[in-house]
Amino acid sequence: MQVLYVSIAAGVLAILYGIWATRSVLSASPGNERMQEIAGYIQEAAGAYLNRQYRAIAIVGVVVAALLFFFLEPWAAFGFVLGAVLSGAAGYIGMLISVRANVRTAEGARESLQRGLSIAFRAGAVTGMLVAGLALLAVAGYYTFLTVGLGFEATGRTVIDSLVSLGFGASLISIFARLGGGIFTKGADVGADLVGKVEAGIPEDDPRNPAVIADNVGDNVGDCAGMAADLFETYVVTVGATMVLSALFLKTGAADLMALPLIIGGVCIVTSIIGTFFVRLGSKQSIMGALYKGFLVTSVLSLIAIYFAMDWALGAEGLDTAFTTADAGRFTGMDLYLCGVVGLAVTGLLIYVTEYYTSTEYRPVRSIAKASETGHGTNVIQGLAISLEATAIPVLIISAGIIVAYSLAGVLGLGFAATAMLALAGMVVALDAYGPVTDNAGGIAEMANLDEDVRSRTDALDAVGNTTKAVTKGYAIGSAGLAALVLFSAYTADIGIYFSEVVVDFSLSNPYVVVGLFLGAMLPYLFGAMGMTAVGRAGGAVVEEVRRQFREKPGIMDGTEKPDYARSVDLLTKAAIREMIIPSLLPVLAPLVVYFVINAIAGQGQAFSAVGALLLGVIVSGLFVAISMTAGGGAWDNAKKYIEDGHHGGKGSEAHKAAVTGDTVGDPYKDTAGPAVNPMIKITNIVALLLLAFLAH
Amino acid sequence: MQVLYVSIAAGVLAILYGIWATRSVLSASPGNERMQEIAGYIQEAAGAYLNRQYRAIAIVGVVVAALLFFFLEPWAAFGFVLGAVLSGAAGYIGMLISVRANVRTAEGARESLQRGLSIAFRAGAVTGMLVAGLALLAVAGYYTFLTVGLGFEATGRTVIDSLVSLGFGASLISIFARLGGGIFTKGADVGADLVGKVEAGIPEDDPRNPAVIADNVGDNVGDCAGMAADLFETYVVTVGATMVLSALFLKTGAADLMALPLIIGGVCIVTSIIGTFFVRLGSKQSIMGALYKGFLVTSVLSLIAIYFAMDWALGAEGLDTAFTTADAGRFTGMDLYLCGVVGLAVTGLLIYVTEYYTSTEYRPVRSIAKASETGHGTNVIQGLAISLEATAIPVLIISAGIIVAYSLAGVLGLGFAATAMLALAGMVVALDAYGPVTDNAGGIAEMANLDEDVRSRTDALDAVGNTTKAVTKGYAIGSAGLAALVLFSAYTADIGIYFSEVVVDFSLSNPYVVVGLFLGAMLPYLFGAMGMTAVGRAGGAVVEEVRRQFREKPGIMDGTEKPDYARSVDLLTKAAIREMIIPSLLPVLAPLVVYFVINAIAGQGQAFSAVGALLLGVIVSGLFVAISMTAGGGAWDNAKKYIEDGHHGGKGSEAHKAAVTGDTVGDPYKDTAGPAVNPMIKITNIVALLLLAFLAH
Repeated sequence: MQVLYVSIAAGVLAILYGIWATRSVLSASPGNERMQEIAGYIQEAAGAYLNRQYRAIAIVGVVVAALLFFFLEPWAAFGFVLGAVLSGAAGYIGMLISVRANVRTAEGARESLQRGLSIAFRAGAVTGMLVAGLALLAVAGYYTFLTVGLGFEATGRTVIDSLVSLGFGASLISIFARLGGGIFTKGADVGADLVGKVEAGIPEDDPRNPAVIADNVGDNVGDCAGMAADLFETYVVTVGATMVLSALFLKTGAADLMALPLIIGGVCIVTSIIGTFFVRLGSKQSIMGALYKGFLVTSVLSLIAIYFAMDWALGAEGLDTAFTTADAGRFTGMDLYLCGVVGLAVTGLLIYVTEYYTSTEYRPVRSIAKASETGHGTNVIQGLAISLEATAIPVLIISAGIIVAYSLAGVLGLGFAATAMLALAGMVVALDAYGPVTDNAGGIAEMANLDEDVRSRTDALDAVGNTTKAVTKGYAIGSAGLAALVLFSAYTADIGIYFSEVVVDFSLSNPYVVVGLFLGAMLPYLFGAMGMTAVGRAGGAVVEEVRRQFREKPGIMDGTEKPDYARSVDLLTKAAIREMIIPSLLPVLAPLVVYFVINAIAGQGQAFSAVGALLLGVIVSGLFVAISMTAGGGAWDNAKKYIEDGHHGGKGSEAHKAAVTGDTVGDPYKDTAGPAVNPMIKITNIVALLLLAFLAH
Repeated sequence: MQVLYVSIAAGVLAILYGIWATRSVLSASPGNERMQEIAGYIQEAAGAYLNRQYRAIAIVGVVVAALLFFFLEPWAAFGFVLGAVLSGAAGYIGMLISVRANVRTAEGARESLQRGLSIAFRAGAVTGMLVAGLALLAVAGYYTFLTVGLGFEATGRTVIDSLVSLGFGASLISIFARLGGGIFTKGADVGADLVGKVEAGIPEDDPRNPAVIADNVGDNVGDCAGMAADLFETYVVTVGATMVLSALFLKTGAADLMALPLIIGGVCIVTSIIGTFFVRLGSKQSIMGALYKGFLVTSVLSLIAIYFAMDWALGAEGLDTAFTTADAGRFTGMDLYLCGVVGLAVTGLLIYVTEYYTSTEYRPVRSIAKASETGHGTNVIQGLAISLEATAIPVLIISAGIIVAYSLAGVLGLGFAATAMLALAGMVVALDAYGPVTDNAGGIAEMANLDEDVRSRTDALDAVGNTTKAVTKGYAIGSAGLAALVLFSAYTADIGIYFSEVVVDFSLSNPYVVVGLFLGAMLPYLFGAMGMTAVGRAGGAVVEEVRRQFREKPGIMDGTEKPDYARSVDLLTKAAIREMIIPSLLPVLAPLVVYFVINAIAGQGQAFSAVGALLLGVIVSGLFVAISMTAGGGAWDNAKKYIEDGHHGGKGSEAHKAAVTGDTVGDPYKDTAGPAVNPMIKITNIVALLLLAFLAH
């Protein structure tokens, strides 16, 4: 019980850090009047978008909550609402800070690079710590409330169903936020670029472009609120599922084991907070170096802290405590710790590989830049080649991680590896949420006509933001894949326990397994297609709106008339919310449809097999689709940056035009379809788990 | 035994048809001197390329044959050589006719559209009938030779290993031919377009472009020789594997069942030959209608003919003959016939869906054309969206086919569905091989300055060729997927029989199965990346060579100097052969590496599980990668054509430029990486089967 309270205390600490950091950010000067005016537009529009998005989600949420309440269990319904509300809160509050930090970062950059970096990173850290803190509080708090408070049995059905529903609530927010935010941000980006840069010939972030505010808002709703919801979900799901697995696999000692993921999350919040204070420029003034320093400190400290925390939490025998499960036989606390080390190693390696594929320093990005010399077509061909290639090493890393973790402690080992990976979420989200702040800071500096040297500082901060965003996406996908595997294991374990009389054949030679794999693999493709099309449509609508404004207000171009920023924001808001509904329902409905159809054709046993295979099909195919899209998109983006830095003819050259095309293609790849695959992988698995709970009920 | 002789006779009939059709094509007038000169360049270069390609393959082939000879079985080595030689022969002879029919089609088009169509289709039919005839002869002949001639037991290890090795020989040719041909053709196409259309501003197929001959050669080595090798392989592998499965599953009545796939192939050769005579223009002068008429006649006749052939072949009880297997229980000959019907239905539906996604008549292509209005980026985004979306319905069709066939007759049902699908290969390859003939005819008409109305006829013939090529690719991939599933079933059956003492857990909850799926799914991505990069490199080399020629021979542009066609052909030949080696080895080595690594880590049982999952991972992921690439590429191509027909601004507009970019991107997608995935899926499975044979030996 002490363990639970310590975990909750760590969650509270994260919130306290968030409050402190928020005050620290807000106490900085918000710059001159023009800067504040621009930032005001962004703040207002971002708030309006999120309000409308959450209202739309709330309608779906109420329906789901009612279903859970009547058909499953009141505490499950409550867990669902809790997960949804806290996930929404993390993203919402994070974004509120982010759109206030942007202008302060721009103002800070007038003073020094370090000042700009500090404000931007601290704003990112608010989102990061809120994600980790609220997620941990949600799981630890609700679990404690149910077991200690209400006295439910830790391994009982109520607790398990409630934890799964908690994850489902987070998932629902996550898929809508990722997809809606992704469509908004890239619809704005693609639309603004096409009509501004290409047609009107005005630079990026020019205040005359009526879509420029929408573009800046988009970065926040996509990379800040969207990523926050995504990792909040992965965190809750991973920790929750690992606890559920412990409950399912062990009938003795389960409660001890169930508390372990919570304490891992708890100590890593402390190490993450410590890490944030190491984000300082060194003598080389390397921004990336400063951020990595913070990350490295957190990682090394976590490696040590997890060891002692687990040793303490396991009581008298510490890490020597032995457990036995059917799949892994006997293993000790030490084995579980080593699984955590595997998770941290996978995190480090994934970040390294993603950087290789998306940084201007290495072959992949440079090969795309080189291919731009021979035109748009060869740029895209090479970009696609890189996006396909970029899947190989991450998948090898994840495969190796799976094998090692499984051999140490079976399915639970995998859960602990994933938990350790996710425990760093606070730090990683901080790195990611830093991105939109600096991106906006650059935009504000441009629009407010700040000095050239301020622009060069915000540009430097922003360039690093591109890399950290790409790197976090690699981490988010890798962790989503592992989390989904843990959920899948919970699905198979659940069937074994609650439907022991049904013959379920998960063998690859079962045709229903083969068909399930095919159908599961189909989902990310179809989902990706819908996401890409939605961005195309939203972008097209922006183009028409901007053209209309230029036509009807000829004074915009010479500065005598003001563009109507709100209209393009409003248009995108509606488009994003309209377009996010159907694709989001795809992963929710797919397991249900497959179950009921196959159940009608071939009975419950085969229906369970097909749904199980569907889950694994989604995981396998989704991992490839997501990695190839995010890595490819990042590489295209930086290939353009590499050319803009003066290679292959530099800005304005034919190679640059080709690279702009590649960047445009990469935008919905890396910021809409690719990242939205993460929540879709997990939500399919969660829905399947809930389906079992319904059926067993 | 009678059944075997009838099948062999049908194979001979196909060859006789080929001889007759060849004489008929060659007896047509080869046109004027200029036309013959151009055709001569193409003939010479195509022959030179294939000679060099086969020489390179021969080196690999000799090594493999030696390995089979010493470590497995002399008859397996002989089967391997036979499969490789006959597959090579089908492609080689087909291409020899194709490069002679092109100029005769152009000359025929001077007379009438019907005359041009007749020559082109008859040339395609030569390749088609050679593929089906030689493939059937290879399997039926070698099987008869081994069982009747040498007296080996039909279900014995020698016969099984020899049939598998026969398929392996065909596979080896296939993967090299597909990949080498694909790199050659698209390297030439991309290179010629970039430097000709974009830089020099000369039209496609302009004789001043030094890469123009290479471009025309490419169509033949890609779509004629490459597709021939691919479907020859699928045919041999499917029929062979279905026979092997019969042997493994039934110990009584197996010999009867083993002859059935052969007779299905036999009668469909007859119906395909009949179908070719129905390819005639109707009153509406619709070329596509004429081709579909032939295909439809063949399909309907096959439906009837297979029924009576199976009823006859099964002897006294006919289709009422009952069989029993462990996986499907009791089923009758009638059930197997219905599985054949499933195969034909899948074929028809796949063709229909592919046409929907790649024809200018429907939403997908038109949406890409529309997106071209807003630039290169949106064209590519929409094309990628369509390529992702295009996977869904084909996969649903294949899944439905799998479930129905399995429920009728278990794994053998799947084999019979696939066999019926492949039995139409003669007709389908004829439709495909028609493509390069008309493409070349158009090129020759352009280069030889034939009249405008001749050009418009060859253009009409060529436009249809684009659709038939796309449609055949859908068929080739679908059949490859089913064939691979049959091979996979043989793998699992083989393990059960020959390694019954090893515990193999194919369950999805086995971590080695999960990792195997991941690794298998990785292969098509990595392979696709290599293929795309190779085209980029080869195209780049062509660009440099053409630029050099324009620089060093300034007279080329005003027609006073002749370009050196041979140099670009030579350069591409070397590039294609060099680039095809490593990716081709990937699917050969992957199962071996996975087996030995996992064997070392976790023992033989898990190694078998991981390799099995690898096979299924390749199939699932490969199907999606291949369908998305070929359908997306076809849609891009036709979106360009749709704009050239006068929509969205027509030729020369900004939308057209964007569409050219999409077409360039689609080229390696649809003609290199996508189609090469087919043989790679199968070869991985065959290698795994051979690995078992080695281990059991």
